Amino acid sequence: MTTIRRMTVRAGPLKSLIWIGRGVIAEAASRLESPSGRFFLIAPSGAAAAAARVREALSGRLLGEFALDDREEAKTLATVERVADAALGEGIRRDDAVLAVGGGVTSDVAGFAAAILLRGVTWNAIPTTTAAMADAAVGGKTGVDHARGKNLLGAFHPPAVILVDTATLDTLPDREHRSGLVEAFKAAWIADAKLAAQAERRLDAVLARKERAVAALLSGALRIKARIVGSDPRDAGARRLLNFGHTLGHAFEAAGGYTHLRHGEAVAWGIAGALELSTARAGLSAQEAERIRSVLGRLGPFPPPDRSPEVLRPFLRRDKKATSAGLPGILLEGIGRGRIEAGIGEDEWLEAAARARIG
Amino acid sequence: MTTIRRMTVRAGPLKSLIWIGRGVIAEAASRLESPSGRFFLIAPSGAAAAAARVREALSGRLLGEFALDDREEAKTLATVERVADAALGEGIRRDDAVLAVGGGVTSDVAGFAAAILLRGVTWNAIPTTTAAMADAAVGGKTGVDHARGKNLLGAFHPPAVILVDTATLDTLPDREHRSGLVEAFKAAWIADAKLAAQAERRLDAVLARKERAVAALLSGALRIKARIVGSDPRDAGARRLLNFGHTLGHAFEAAGGYTHLRHGEAVAWGIAGALELSTARAGLSAQEAERIRSVLGRLGPFPPPDRSPEVLRPFLRRDKKATSAGLPGILLEGIGRGRIEAGIGEDEWLEAAARARIG
Repeated sequence: MTTIRRMTVRAGPLKSLIWIGRGVIAEAASRLESPSGRFFLIAPSGAAAAAARVREALSGRLLGEFALDDREEAKTLATVERVADAALGEGIRRDDAVLAVGGGVTSDVAGFAAAILLRGVTWNAIPTTTAAMADAAVGGKTGVDHARGKNLLGAFHPPAVILVDTATLDTLPDREHRSGLVEAFKAAWIADAKLAAQAERRLDAVLARKERAVAALLSGALRIKARIVGSDPRDAGARRLLNFGHTLGHAFEAAGGYTHLRHGEAVAWGIAGALELSTARAGLSAQEAERIRSVLGRLGPFPPPDRSPEVLRPFLRRDKKATSAGLPGILLEGIGRGRIEAGIGEDEWLEAAARARIG
Repeated sequence: MTTIRRMTVRAGPLKSLIWIGRGVIAEAASRLESPSGRFFLIAPSGAAAAAARVREALSGRLLGEFALDDREEAKTLATVERVADAALGEGIRRDDAVLAVGGGVTSDVAGFAAAILLRGVTWNAIPTTTAAMADAAVGGKTGVDHARGKNLLGAFHPPAVILVDTATLDTLPDREHRSGLVEAFKAAWIADAKLAAQAERRLDAVLARKERAVAALLSGALRIKARIVGSDPRDAGARRLLNFGHTLGHAFEAAGGYTHLRHGEAVAWGIAGALELSTARAGLSAQEAERIRSVLGRLGPFPPPDRSPEVLRPFLRRDKKATSAGLPGILLEGIGRGRIEAGIGEDEWLEAAARARIG
């Protein structure tokens, strides 16, 4: 076992504890939280290997299991109800806990189920993808999609404990790892120039999943997210910084029907678009923009999204944050210095999307 | 317009404001809370008259409406999803608010929908039944039933504002009014001897729905609930006092398939059962028990529940609070002095149920 790092995230009155380290799943019995000591395990088939290790570590303490369909199409209230049916069928009580083992969809769905089961039970997350380690669960946003848009139904319900075991990344497909790293770099670019520079230097090791390099980048990204979430638990202000690259990213993702691009890939292109706006409006230097594009290029190559204005426009309009003045955007003044910019016009977004370059 | 009383309920970091008075609906536009000023109205057909007055008071500020099926059988996650579909279809945003006009099922369902829409929007409640005025919404417990039991899925999400307009009771069926009063008296019996004595003296006026008598009893009951909820926002201790009469009450209600007895009627019989345990175990005097039975008799007559042990036993076992030591109960040491008693055996409950008398 390598070093285990510990981190605390506060979101309003609620607290999450994060443990990061290779092999930390073996300590699940002592690290995870359940008032009764019992857990209801929720995992997709893709996380079978990690789930097997969790089962071993929690031997005798599982009150039941649910095999989750973790495709984005299945991230619905109906799936949450199936999870709840299974948990109630196993007799889950208020002092039992939910345990989510998997990627972002798993923690979104399992966390939401935990939020509404018996009006809220404790839950724990063991992310098994790079994206979920860098982003999901921390901050307590849980939820499901609706025909009208992504994540429109949900709850703020932070997990009590998050175990980040980098060993689960060993078998992750390369495309998953690379697209997940976009979210980790995003955190560095908006708030931590030193972390960004360090991760940039060690990028080959990060891509090769060298323990120290990956753990350093993920802990750095989590530290940033924890700090931002702690200052804005209900997503009313500073937390929007975390949306860097997501305004265009969501539109690219939706335009591709959520199948053409991974979330992180769409965000990479969204960041490339935001760089255009940042140099024009926020004083980001051409040189720093180029550094970021170069990192994105090394993380990729990512499939190019459809960037035609007629395709993107309706998706930008549908954005939850759209007002008559336009859409707010997250821009960089420099690497490590993100800011929230209100009212960027639709056409300006579409032009930035058209100009976006990676590599 | 008569006097408008104002009351504040604190549940953890959250606060609800209650306005009580005949005709207060006319002031909905200035009393209700919505950050955007817009409301999504949820009301069943049974509350059509109150909804019409609300519509008039909020003229031009409704972003949409949903006609809720408020039968207990329809209190499901599927109904919450239909409410959410409608609200999202009307373009509800985070700064809009939900407004529930109706009885307890309406506030349970609408409040839960508000809890999960866009991860939580503001909501307001206008109860239109005696039971809902005395009990529902205050404290923020929202939720729906599940095949495995009542209220198994839900959220703590207190309404920002509750308007108690006693004028809406004018057209309430007598059986609804009488069964609803049981919850109001329950509050007095567990915590306020003076209120209990006063309401007992004015019982004829309360039954005849005289404004001053009804408003005094309801405000008293709400004050008690507000105090108890404020001391135990997450339902972990003192709040259980509010369950006086509910252990047997829930079993009676379930055994009757939720159609034979109104909730308040089942609770009345549950209180009668709890009186037997209270005289045996908690020192309640025979005279005070008789006073309570007499009030219940005047509130009734209530249809008698099936009290055979073979019918009730499985429902008691299914109680969320059951442990191997038995079921906790709320007993009275005297009128106005409730206490929580752990581990009352199943057989003792069944005997108390068999001995219960009203009148």
